Amino acid sequence: MAGAVALRAGLAEPTGCVTELPQLHSPALPGLADLVFGGHDVIATPLSKRAEALADAGVLPGRLVTAVQPDLAALDAEVRPAPRGATQAETAALIAADLDDFRRRHELGRVVMMNVASTEAAAAPHEAHAALDLLHKALRGDAAVLPPSSLYAYAAFTAGCSYVDFTPSTGARLPALAQLAYERGVPYAGHDGKTGETLVKSVLAPMFAMRNLHVRSWSGANLLGGGDGANLAQPAPNAAKAASKQRVLAETLGYQPQGDTRIEYVADLGEFKTAWDLVTFTGFLGTPMRLDFTWHGCDSALAAPLVLDLVRLTAAAHRAGRTGPLPELAFFFKDPLGDVPHGLAAQWDALVGLVEGLA
Amino acid sequence: MAGAVALRAGLAEPTGCVTELPQLHSPALPGLADLVFGGHDVIATPLSKRAEALADAGVLPGRLVTAVQPDLAALDAEVRPAPRGATQAETAALIAADLDDFRRRHELGRVVMMNVASTEAAAAPHEAHAALDLLHKALRGDAAVLPPSSLYAYAAFTAGCSYVDFTPSTGARLPALAQLAYERGVPYAGHDGKTGETLVKSVLAPMFAMRNLHVRSWSGANLLGGGDGANLAQPAPNAAKAASKQRVLAETLGYQPQGDTRIEYVADLGEFKTAWDLVTFTGFLGTPMRLDFTWHGCDSALAAPLVLDLVRLTAAAHRAGRTGPLPELAFFFKDPLGDVPHGLAAQWDALVGLVEGLA
Amino acid sequence: MAGAVALRAGLAEPTGCVTELPQLHSPALPGLADLVFGGHDVIATPLSKRAEALADAGVLPGRLVTAVQPDLAALDAEVRPAPRGATQAETAALIAADLDDFRRRHELGRVVMMNVASTEAAAAPHEAHAALDLLHKALRGDAAVLPPSSLYAYAAFTAGCSYVDFTPSTGARLPALAQLAYERGVPYAGHDGKTGETLVKSVLAPMFAMRNLHVRSWSGANLLGGGDGANLAQPAPNAAKAASKQRVLAETLGYQPQGDTRIEYVADLGEFKTAWDLVTFTGFLGTPMRLDFTWHGCDSALAAPLVLDLVRLTAAAHRAGRTGPLPELAFFFKDPLGDVPHGLAAQWDALVGLVEGLA
Amino acid sequence: MAGAVALRAGLAEPTGCVTELPQLHSPALPGLADLVFGGHDVIATPLSKRAEALADAGVLPGRLVTAVQPDLAALDAEVRPAPRGATQAETAALIAADLDDFRRRHELGRVVMMNVASTEAAAAPHEAHAALDLLHKALRGDAAVLPPSSLYAYAAFTAGCSYVDFTPSTGARLPALAQLAYERGVPYAGHDGKTGETLVKSVLAPMFAMRNLHVRSWSGANLLGGGDGANLAQPAPNAAKAASKQRVLAETLGYQPQGDTRIEYVADLGEFKTAWDLVTFTGFLGTPMRLDFTWHGCDSALAAPLVLDLVRLTAAAHRAGRTGPLPELAFFFKDPLGDVPHGLAAQWDALVGLVEGLA
Repeated sequence: MAGAVALRAGLAEPTGCVTELPQLHSPALPGLADLVFGGHDVIATPLSKRAEALADAGVLPGRLVTAVQPDLAALDAEVRPAPRGATQAETAALIAADLDDFRRRHELGRVVMMNVASTEAAAAPHEAHAALDLLHKALRGDAAVLPPSSLYAYAAFTAGCSYVDFTPSTGARLPALAQLAYERGVPYAGHDGKTGETLVKSVLAPMFAMRNLHVRSWSGANLLGGGDGANLAQPAPNAAKAASKQRVLAETLGYQPQGDTRIEYVADLGEFKTAWDLVTFTGFLGTPMRLDFTWHGCDSALAAPLVLDLVRLTAAAHRAGRTGPLPELAFFFKDPLGDVPHGLAAQWDALVGLVEGLA
Repeated sequence: MAGAVALRAGLAEPTGCVTELPQLHSPALPGLADLVFGGHDVIATPLSKRAEALADAGVLPGRLVTAVQPDLAALDAEVRPAPRGATQAETAALIAADLDDFRRRHELGRVVMMNVASTEAAAAPHEAHAALDLLHKALRGDAAVLPPSSLYAYAAFTAGCSYVDFTPSTGARLPALAQLAYERGVPYAGHDGKTGETLVKSVLAPMFAMRNLHVRSWSGANLLGGGDGANLAQPAPNAAKAASKQRVLAETLGYQPQGDTRIEYVADLGEFKTAWDLVTFTGFLGTPMRLDFTWHGCDSALAAPLVLDLVRLTAAAHRAGRTGPLPELAFFFKDPLGDVPHGLAAQWDALVGLVEGLA
Repeated sequence: MAGAVALRAGLAEPTGCVTELPQLHSPALPGLADLVFGGHDVIATPLSKRAEALADAGVLPGRLVTAVQPDLAALDAEVRPAPRGATQAETAALIAADLDDFRRRHELGRVVMMNVASTEAAAAPHEAHAALDLLHKALRGDAAVLPPSSLYAYAAFTAGCSYVDFTPSTGARLPALAQLAYERGVPYAGHDGKTGETLVKSVLAPMFAMRNLHVRSWSGANLLGGGDGANLAQPAPNAAKAASKQRVLAETLGYQPQGDTRIEYVADLGEFKTAWDLVTFTGFLGTPMRLDFTWHGCDSALAAPLVLDLVRLTAAAHRAGRTGPLPELAFFFKDPLGDVPHGLAAQWDALVGLVEGLA
Repeated sequence: MAGAVALRAGLAEPTGCVTELPQLHSPALPGLADLVFGGHDVIATPLSKRAEALADAGVLPGRLVTAVQPDLAALDAEVRPAPRGATQAETAALIAADLDDFRRRHELGRVVMMNVASTEAAAAPHEAHAALDLLHKALRGDAAVLPPSSLYAYAAFTAGCSYVDFTPSTGARLPALAQLAYERGVPYAGHDGKTGETLVKSVLAPMFAMRNLHVRSWSGANLLGGGDGANLAQPAPNAAKAASKQRVLAETLGYQPQGDTRIEYVADLGEFKTAWDLVTFTGFLGTPMRLDFTWHGCDSALAAPLVLDLVRLTAAAHRAGRTGPLPELAFFFKDPLGDVPHGLAAQWDALVGLVEGLA
């Protein structure tokens, strides 16, 4: 949100915003000035305080944070605590009502719900996930049927809003919710924003494939601190995240090399993640060779512009009448919906095609 | 040559051979068994001795070298000293005559000349380079008008052979020679085989571009030993090579970042080159980030299968009636002919298109 | 053993042998030609086959292996299966008898037992570990009281042999065994040969300490294949090894930084381990900085000369009348016995002092 | 200066100050509160502005800079333009007079001159460098006889001040100036502060030596921006710096490995230097192995506390009656005066010995 304010005020260039590139810039997409922000959160810290913390962490420039503080204070009014009902059905209704209200008060054409919460553990299976009528009924019971990301998707679809999941959580990836999306005529996209190490994998793995080099092993160490790191220090979210990060290799190479990617919490690294990967491969006549890389990036800084991109693209798709999953947005995700290519260049082509079709 | 022998004998998989991938495998291409090898060299060392040296250097497996020795001994008969005439015209005529003879004796459909010699310094300009009639005439004089790579291209075209340049030398990149190629109805391709560090650049640079991340600097250190390294320790070949390696950044990013790539000779590294690159970039709101990678590969082992690929592709293009430069082969080169994309994925698409068109 | 044979035959320089450095070369140490090898193993593979495997893995030069094969065949006679008695006391007696017999047949002055077996899990505590008389008695029972390394140490001391442990296993590190060593007048040393990543830590950590730079985190990824790697893929040996590798930081810095070292099995890496470490530190006024390093080494090749060194040094210490632990050998170990410095330079000084005292 | 102010005010811990370590903390050294700062510079930018620039560059924390601004403004009065006389003798006299005046006004016990200016090219030899009487005379001529660092050393000694050179410039390293220091009874130290990559070399090279591993090559790339980097982009200072950086290898290993260290200017890196080193070495039986490391540090932040340390130590040495070079300060320098060890641990021992002797 700080970035959107800064961009509107001309305080920064839209570096990192993919929809600002010539090939994707289109009148079919809402402009940055057309976006109105709101949200639900479990933390009550005001946006201004969070922005200051990010400045201290070296993520945002201090001067910029100072400049956008008034706007952030105004935005705080639209960020409220996640509501809680007696049943999940009631909770969903409260969320949907809030979405309706938000849309009405700001006279919005449409609303895109974007999940940027901490990674959940994988959802426990439930028979109600299989069909929408079963789900409607089960949600009225006392037990929790859906994990939070899925409950929010349910509420979004109910309120006629699209849904994008930037996390590896379950989100709308249940048959009942897919059904609801089609029923309500809304699109959705996801999963797990691809910002750093996996972004690099998504271009390097196809490189080996295109040159018929055999990747024998691909090992990785991901070290990070901050809130994201602390969350991923827990085994279940850690496993969900690691699984998501591994897909790209098998999908682009066509086989699964030896080795694993590990995620570890090192508080001192704060908001800047360091990822180290070692790739061993063989070439002609079996000559063993290796490539290693070290990525030192700030996930928040890399994700923020992509969140703005996804909102604009999904809103445009919704407006153009698209319903159901948007596989053309695979470019943004480590674990994309649909049967899609995992090489970044192929995903880029699909994204360009989407935008051209929207115009 | 050792590799081709090994592949034919079923002693190795065609790892590293791009034309063996499903997307490029085509009956339009000559099979590996259809290739007959010959050549000119300035070194008289028998192929068997060179193969043993490569085994000692860890490039070729010892057992494989032992197995292919008889075939290599046979191939030696077709590798002869580079001829020398009183004038460059005479030298060219001797080369062309040798090509004719080679084609006739082996009853070949066509011949592809492949330059894999040491990098030359940039050619001194000469007015005869501009037009073919001027060139024919100048070559009959006493002075050297063409560098060796260009003289060989001249001879190849004269003899109706195609020409591929795996080096950054001048080769056929003179107007007079382009004219000759068209006149004789032969195709040509090049320049500077893309095997290692630049291969990685050709996928990473487009990645930054696709994500609208601003690359501020891209610095590199290339360390290598062996004959290639010793040659590149000399300033003029070093400059020619470095210039070739830098094109990909400006072409894919659309701007030239700060920083340089340096090539240095370190004898102990032998045939295995280590390249280290540091990329600094900024994202949204100017957050500074970095990526560095270390490539440890054997250029000979990476180049050999691409040489086989290029021979097969160029022969097929010649057979299909193509004349002049083959920009669709940019996939193989750091400094490709023609006005072509420099991102590897786009080059791959062009190559696939070429093969489909040949079938 | 292959190395010792090669050195005696003048086929190789004693690179990696610390006792061949001027500061440590001493007539007080037995010469390489004075060493006679024997051993117990659980694998029956002949030494010649193992040497060939190491040549294939790129650890030993092929030509050297060919040259030493006759000697290795002769050495095989002295490598026998680990004996097994009805009780641990019987097993120990069989081992001790074998040691006696070995000493007598070869007319040796003394015998050094060197543990180079796979890392065991940490020993389950047992009350008999606390005192020698309890231990003698418990060993005569049916249950296993000592892990293999400790049973071998017990047998060694019983037979009047010194004991060196190159692994992180328990070995002689039990009060009862310390008692036995003193009783029998023999010295012992250990634990866990320091060959690669920890060697580098043992000079880098003191560097940060000497400059009063504050190390905030030190994280590491150790990737290896081969038999050692496969063994360390099991949780218990993995934990024992990781604990040993972490001591050096706390001991040299005086505090424990954030971060962990992980060991992972990647079969393709074979005998060559790759270790990557990331160190984040702050300097004056809190400026955050970082150092990372990548170590690519062959543990067997690094360990072998140190094994020869330790045999020579321990034999000399035994001859000079030393009994009990030899803390001056800390230079060789990640988890050294005694209250010793962990910085490599200080350990070097202690080792030089030991050799000077022996002369 | 900002750091000293911050430390006195209790705004920061003395991280990076070696004289604050227990082994070196001594009442023989002046306290930080006892230091008075002054200087000559060629740039007129006020200290407060420079501190702000360093805060923008991420070197100094913004809040700290704000806190020390009043003190920096006061210090500005004592930083003045470098004077210029008609001859070098006159210039030296003006500098010496300024030093006298500074000492008198602040009632100081002694003054330490610290050279932290940009690296000069190597001095052109001059016969007057050989003897003091020749030098006195030559300086009265019109031509420049001494480079700036040496003229300042001359002035310092003339005024009875000690001299420390944190740069690789010539400084007092001329026979005539050594003579003058002894004549005036003052000590001096230098050269070229050892803060980053060479610091790491000074512990790693001895590590290879202690383990009798043969270092085959040691190559390095040093990339930096800022004023230091721009200066080192010029060939002559670059060569002077590179020569200084190479000494440590030959001195600690006893031989010069293949490879070079290159210094390159990359503006984007600003005040943070990235150094990458690749070491290839062989062990027992010739097994080839490698170690590479990447250092990412801020030279200013690393140098500042060492400058404070050197001032305190040199002042204490002067007070204790030491004259001439202080080889025990080699711990701080890449190119230390005197015949000294180059391994950091040995240098540390000498430094501890110096402080113990001063007490």
